[in-house]
Amino acid sequence: MLIEKYRIQELNDSQLSTHKAKLSGLTGSIANTASVIEKLIAFQVAIPSWALGAGGTRFGRFSIGGEPRNLEEKIEDVGLLQALNQSSGAISLHIPWDIPENATSIKALAAQHGLRFDAVNSNTFQDQKGQQHSYKFGSLQHVDKAVRKQAIEHNIEVIRQGVALGSESLTVWLADGSCFPGQLNFRKAFQNTLESLKEIYAALPDNWKVFVEYKAFEPNFYSTTVGDWGQSLLYASKLGPKAYTLVDLGHHLPNANIEQIVSLLLMEGKLGGFHFNDSKYGDDDLTVGSINPYQLFLIFQELVEGMDAKGMNHATDLGWMIDASHNVKDPLEDLLQSVEAIQLAYAQALLVDAKALDQARQENDTVKAQELLQDAYRTDVRPLVAEARLRAGGALNPIGLYRSLKVRENLIKERGLVTVATGL
Amino acid sequence: MLIEKYRIQELNDSQLSTHKAKLSGLTGSIANTASVIEKLIAFQVAIPSWALGAGGTRFGRFSIGGEPRNLEEKIEDVGLLQALNQSSGAISLHIPWDIPENATSIKALAAQHGLRFDAVNSNTFQDQKGQQHSYKFGSLQHVDKAVRKQAIEHNIEVIRQGVALGSESLTVWLADGSCFPGQLNFRKAFQNTLESLKEIYAALPDNWKVFVEYKAFEPNFYSTTVGDWGQSLLYASKLGPKAYTLVDLGHHLPNANIEQIVSLLLMEGKLGGFHFNDSKYGDDDLTVGSINPYQLFLIFQELVEGMDAKGMNHATDLGWMIDASHNVKDPLEDLLQSVEAIQLAYAQALLVDAKALDQARQENDTVKAQELLQDAYRTDVRPLVAEARLRAGGALNPIGLYRSLKVRENLIKERGLVTVATGL
Amino acid sequence: MLIEKYRIQELNDSQLSTHKAKLSGLTGSIANTASVIEKLIAFQVAIPSWALGAGGTRFGRFSIGGEPRNLEEKIEDVGLLQALNQSSGAISLHIPWDIPENATSIKALAAQHGLRFDAVNSNTFQDQKGQQHSYKFGSLQHVDKAVRKQAIEHNIEVIRQGVALGSESLTVWLADGSCFPGQLNFRKAFQNTLESLKEIYAALPDNWKVFVEYKAFEPNFYSTTVGDWGQSLLYASKLGPKAYTLVDLGHHLPNANIEQIVSLLLMEGKLGGFHFNDSKYGDDDLTVGSINPYQLFLIFQELVEGMDAKGMNHATDLGWMIDASHNVKDPLEDLLQSVEAIQLAYAQALLVDAKALDQARQENDTVKAQELLQDAYRTDVRPLVAEARLRAGGALNPIGLYRSLKVRENLIKERGLVTVATGL
Amino acid sequence: MLIEKYRIQELNDSQLSTHKAKLSGLTGSIANTASVIEKLIAFQVAIPSWALGAGGTRFGRFSIGGEPRNLEEKIEDVGLLQALNQSSGAISLHIPWDIPENATSIKALAAQHGLRFDAVNSNTFQDQKGQQHSYKFGSLQHVDKAVRKQAIEHNIEVIRQGVALGSESLTVWLADGSCFPGQLNFRKAFQNTLESLKEIYAALPDNWKVFVEYKAFEPNFYSTTVGDWGQSLLYASKLGPKAYTLVDLGHHLPNANIEQIVSLLLMEGKLGGFHFNDSKYGDDDLTVGSINPYQLFLIFQELVEGMDAKGMNHATDLGWMIDASHNVKDPLEDLLQSVEAIQLAYAQALLVDAKALDQARQENDTVKAQELLQDAYRTDVRPLVAEARLRAGGALNPIGLYRSLKVRENLIKERGLVTVATGL
Repeated sequence: MLIEKYRIQELNDSQLSTHKAKLSGLTGSIANTASVIEKLIAFQVAIPSWALGAGGTRFGRFSIGGEPRNLEEKIEDVGLLQALNQSSGAISLHIPWDIPENATSIKALAAQHGLRFDAVNSNTFQDQKGQQHSYKFGSLQHVDKAVRKQAIEHNIEVIRQGVALGSESLTVWLADGSCFPGQLNFRKAFQNTLESLKEIYAALPDNWKVFVEYKAFEPNFYSTTVGDWGQSLLYASKLGPKAYTLVDLGHHLPNANIEQIVSLLLMEGKLGGFHFNDSKYGDDDLTVGSINPYQLFLIFQELVEGMDAKGMNHATDLGWMIDASHNVKDPLEDLLQSVEAIQLAYAQALLVDAKALDQARQENDTVKAQELLQDAYRTDVRPLVAEARLRAGGALNPIGLYRSLKVRENLIKERGLVTVATGL
Repeated sequence: MLIEKYRIQELNDSQLSTHKAKLSGLTGSIANTASVIEKLIAFQVAIPSWALGAGGTRFGRFSIGGEPRNLEEKIEDVGLLQALNQSSGAISLHIPWDIPENATSIKALAAQHGLRFDAVNSNTFQDQKGQQHSYKFGSLQHVDKAVRKQAIEHNIEVIRQGVALGSESLTVWLADGSCFPGQLNFRKAFQNTLESLKEIYAALPDNWKVFVEYKAFEPNFYSTTVGDWGQSLLYASKLGPKAYTLVDLGHHLPNANIEQIVSLLLMEGKLGGFHFNDSKYGDDDLTVGSINPYQLFLIFQELVEGMDAKGMNHATDLGWMIDASHNVKDPLEDLLQSVEAIQLAYAQALLVDAKALDQARQENDTVKAQELLQDAYRTDVRPLVAEARLRAGGALNPIGLYRSLKVRENLIKERGLVTVATGL
Repeated sequence: MLIEKYRIQELNDSQLSTHKAKLSGLTGSIANTASVIEKLIAFQVAIPSWALGAGGTRFGRFSIGGEPRNLEEKIEDVGLLQALNQSSGAISLHIPWDIPENATSIKALAAQHGLRFDAVNSNTFQDQKGQQHSYKFGSLQHVDKAVRKQAIEHNIEVIRQGVALGSESLTVWLADGSCFPGQLNFRKAFQNTLESLKEIYAALPDNWKVFVEYKAFEPNFYSTTVGDWGQSLLYASKLGPKAYTLVDLGHHLPNANIEQIVSLLLMEGKLGGFHFNDSKYGDDDLTVGSINPYQLFLIFQELVEGMDAKGMNHATDLGWMIDASHNVKDPLEDLLQSVEAIQLAYAQALLVDAKALDQARQENDTVKAQELLQDAYRTDVRPLVAEARLRAGGALNPIGLYRSLKVRENLIKERGLVTVATGL
Repeated sequence: MLIEKYRIQELNDSQLSTHKAKLSGLTGSIANTASVIEKLIAFQVAIPSWALGAGGTRFGRFSIGGEPRNLEEKIEDVGLLQALNQSSGAISLHIPWDIPENATSIKALAAQHGLRFDAVNSNTFQDQKGQQHSYKFGSLQHVDKAVRKQAIEHNIEVIRQGVALGSESLTVWLADGSCFPGQLNFRKAFQNTLESLKEIYAALPDNWKVFVEYKAFEPNFYSTTVGDWGQSLLYASKLGPKAYTLVDLGHHLPNANIEQIVSLLLMEGKLGGFHFNDSKYGDDDLTVGSINPYQLFLIFQELVEGMDAKGMNHATDLGWMIDASHNVKDPLEDLLQSVEAIQLAYAQALLVDAKALDQARQENDTVKAQELLQDAYRTDVRPLVAEARLRAGGALNPIGLYRSLKVRENLIKERGLVTVATGL
């Protein structure tokens, strides 16, 4: 299914006057809305190929219907999102779930949809059919060199696939760890993992980055070998300048101050990018901004402040990706909500009066500092985000349009009701 | 110090046109703003007498200066808040920190400031000078009947004080519990506590309520004898119709779903009221809405929905109180921020399209349900809250006025720099 | 595979003198070892049929080989455990994973292995093939009466199956809840669930119990409709005298004091039984006693104290079940470890000097109370548990025997390497 | 009060035959008990001067009576502990609570009691009388250079005091952080803190170490500027070879895997030492081993394994200190329990069959690895610890002797009932 431009235009036209009225309320009272809108237009969030089907838990999975049956259909789905919001201009592949048989034609297909390929993701947390060694007891950490070797080679193969697609980064998320006290020598597991990562690092093209993702727990329930930002930073520092830490919002212990972690990783020049989602308990992989949107804003406030302090380009110097699972929502609707939540947080962060904040901090005026943050946060920035979409050729109301066009119904018609996309 | 009406008027006048412009943006697009503003005017939050001075932690306390030295000055402070926001029309006393020597004159003083007396609070978590028995090992739970008796009598004395002031409820927060496995027989501690509460309950006037507050931990670090809502509900149910559960937002285990607890307590007819604050780790007693304002909104969404379902009066049928500690902020500024955060959450909850939400739920349309909540939450309702203040005779910008009138500086001049208010 | 008596005898004989020496060290210094051993012999833990194969997480599953392919083989597996430890004399079935085609022959088979049928478990957290209505949005809580009806009927069918097998209790664990704020009306979800449970309750035979299990989160990641002990107790109280709360050790928020919950449920006469396991983060379903064995002991200390206070029979008046998942261990070895951990905690709890503890508590002698608990806990009670096994006809060292008999290798030979048992 | 040798001898004699019987049970079945006992004798735990009086919480403090009124009496108290257990041969001072007026005589007094001075502790989390600048908004992180300067100078003064006493390390625990989002620029706070630490580092004598302690939260409730091991390691790495991380067991987020942190810090050569205590919720400062003794064992297992791998001396190459608070126990009894819990965990860790564990790990034999750990843990090593005390001249049963000698009663007689030791 393709969304024709005129359908977007039609709906936008019918909503334009209301939108413009709301927008003018903001542009009248806020100085820098023009620059905010420009930055919003430039800001693109990568969609993970594994999040286009219904997700599940270990207790089961409930199909949504019309799920993409192959890589081409996944690109088509991201293309739909991009047509609607013009902010999802990249796709993040997962190997071996998405091995492109013909990279050239896949690249061309993506380009037709206005998409580029963001970080490629390796997978050593499951055993694939016909795989020689099992990852039951880890991959890059494994006590057996042969297993490590297999996992290293898989990662190098993923880089190769990524190069062919024009991707420029590799995300390594390891399930490696242990379920029971005693199972693992933590030190040796770290050292094995480091040695393995070094071999992968050596295979990176010059213009590539590798993102070392951390996670506190799950699927291992006693220890994880890249368990927190401190461990990830240790690996990244020992690896070299192309290695960075990747922050997944759901991968922390309860009550962690993620925004402080973000700030310090930026300070160290070692923040590589994000996996956005939201969570209440663990790696719940819920819609971005659905549980704690203020935390998301605080993270973006650190990003804007910290990137500006380093002269970084908001749109291109970090990897912006969603990593979510859609157990009870239509994945495409969920992703539209997630991208919008990210944009809102970013827009609010751009509204913070940085100079006044600096001064309030200099004076230890905690009340004022909070007021400055909340003044930006409480602003209804939806018209700014909508305007950015409008100018970029997207829909004022993406979910509204998605529903009025009956996209899901059409996909089900095209693909069937009982398709199952690869993924979690 | 008193804030004269004309000072408020002056500042309001200078901000009126900007305010009206913002307000009209809302009233133009939202149907029920008039009713929302009315409800906001009626909604009053009680200020705790113990939160008017600088708070501290076990590691120390940093004075703010100009803290109230006695009950009269505490009332004066709440009077200042009420003058500024017209939403703090009640004070919640803590006995024995605030024993009124002459109830009649204290009542008259409060009335001059437009204040009534909300729930009175007993204190059996500290030993008072000259006290016969120590509460080191608990009060209402104590293994020694004589200690329990002393604690019971203290509570009855608090009721007596409350009656004299026109209060109509008693809040019982117990630090009772244990620090070490083995220390306590949980069952006997429960039964002793219940028996004690029954004696206190028997002393309640007909029109009174008793609020049984729960808390997961601190100051006891292994168990608390009223540790969660389940335990509080057990006590309240066994006590009778005048007993209710009181929810303090900071008194839960990590990740607790407080809004669900609120909903179920309302369902059972056993929700008594709130102690508002915010927290990241434990009973941090931070400014309301400073850490997770969306959670606060979700709680108010349950309150509005649940109270409406029972035909309850929002303003009067539950006890609305703040319980916070002010370690790094001017307490009065902090309280102005807290009251505003509560009003914003309440206003947003009033904007939720309840009918559409019901329907979305009926259809399991999770995406729509989230959109409906976030549509209300993302609305910038500050103009509504400001308008409510304006109509009630308060300031459009309470903190701005507080600062321009140099209230703290005046209080320091009047009361001195090294005063210490009673409290934590 | 069957373990012949003489194989057990052989290994026991070779270890007997060492065992007897260790045992006499204990019997010499502790007064009531005879009674402890008797109680240990009587104490049987039910093995869940779904825990006999390799478990998995949402990230994958790594087969162990030789997993039982049907109910008969599951019974055979539990029979192996029972032959080895003589403490696993019951099996807990899960419908529809284990529908017995012929109840009579299945009962006979179980009897041959010395097994009885403990609680039967319903499953409304997955959709079964050909099922009319989906449980994607809940079962007993569902907004649609037809879905609730289907789930109710399934539970009644489970009771029927259980009756045929001689089971006398039904465990209802509901995944019902919500993933997102807004998705659910908590109150209506509670009321629907209660109404549904009432219909199931009405179908219980006179001598049956229903266990209402609670869980804080997963697979729903925002709210669970039976989310904590308070909610479970509300349901159980409203249902009637045959309804009880079931405590699964992994189903709590971080830092919860489970032993206090156990004590209070016993006090209320509403504790029904246990799902034993251990966890560090969430419902990790790890081997009992592998993460925090002291907590397990503290729970048993409450059980022994509380059951004795009510004159309850330790062995029969509560349901003792394991609920674990075996991602990296041989399930049978894991279960042997789990049962032993339970027995050790129970034995230690039996050694607590209850009279002295009472007195220490009466005197608020916290140091002494801790010493009394830790004195029992630090005692090496393994000889007592081994002696109980020996007297009952089991192995002194079950895991040692299991390995020397190459049980897993034999099961793989019999059943194949790539079998997959039903379960999580 | 002094405990005369013959009183210890007397009680030991009366318990000797029972003790010897228990001991021989162990020495008969375990190979390396002689070496374990030797290592236990060498292992000394430093007692913090601030833990000798009743501790408190922000809700109050309940005196114990007989608390030390000055540094001399604190040394006397630690001397009592040392006389009883011969494992508390060091004291850790806290400046300015314990400024020695005459270092020479204080050193001599300590020597009389067999005590040396362990790490000295600075205090910039409270304002001291007459202090020019306030630490309300931090010390080493402060936005104002003058405040940082004052805090730096205080630390250098503490080093000076420590040198005079023969201490060789400085522990820096900072309460620095923030209570509210917005209050702090995390990056600048880190950089200010680092710069300040560098000045302190420069003042360290050649043979000194500085320990950078981290803490997740409290007294700041939004962020801590040395918040976790990752941050502490960053500071320590940037400072140089004399800087190390100090691990306080209670300073982590819920569910943190502390033993893994310990292992990795050892791997990096950056583990400096410990503050032992136990906790259920936060920095509860409870008796060591009172909540989760298995975790303590797992930490010691990592310590023994990791230190042995580096050829480190268990007794001297790390700083072993207790940091606890005694709200409901006699501090001296609590400390006796804490030291014993540490010794037990250490002894158990020494019993682990390291070679077999290595092999089990090499074979991914998780069941066996757990068995090996739990085999050591379940062993009743109390006779080994008692024997170590006996040989070193201490009491077989320290708490028993403490009570039979009526030490607390004597201290109250000497010092009075209402003394208050400095501390928390």
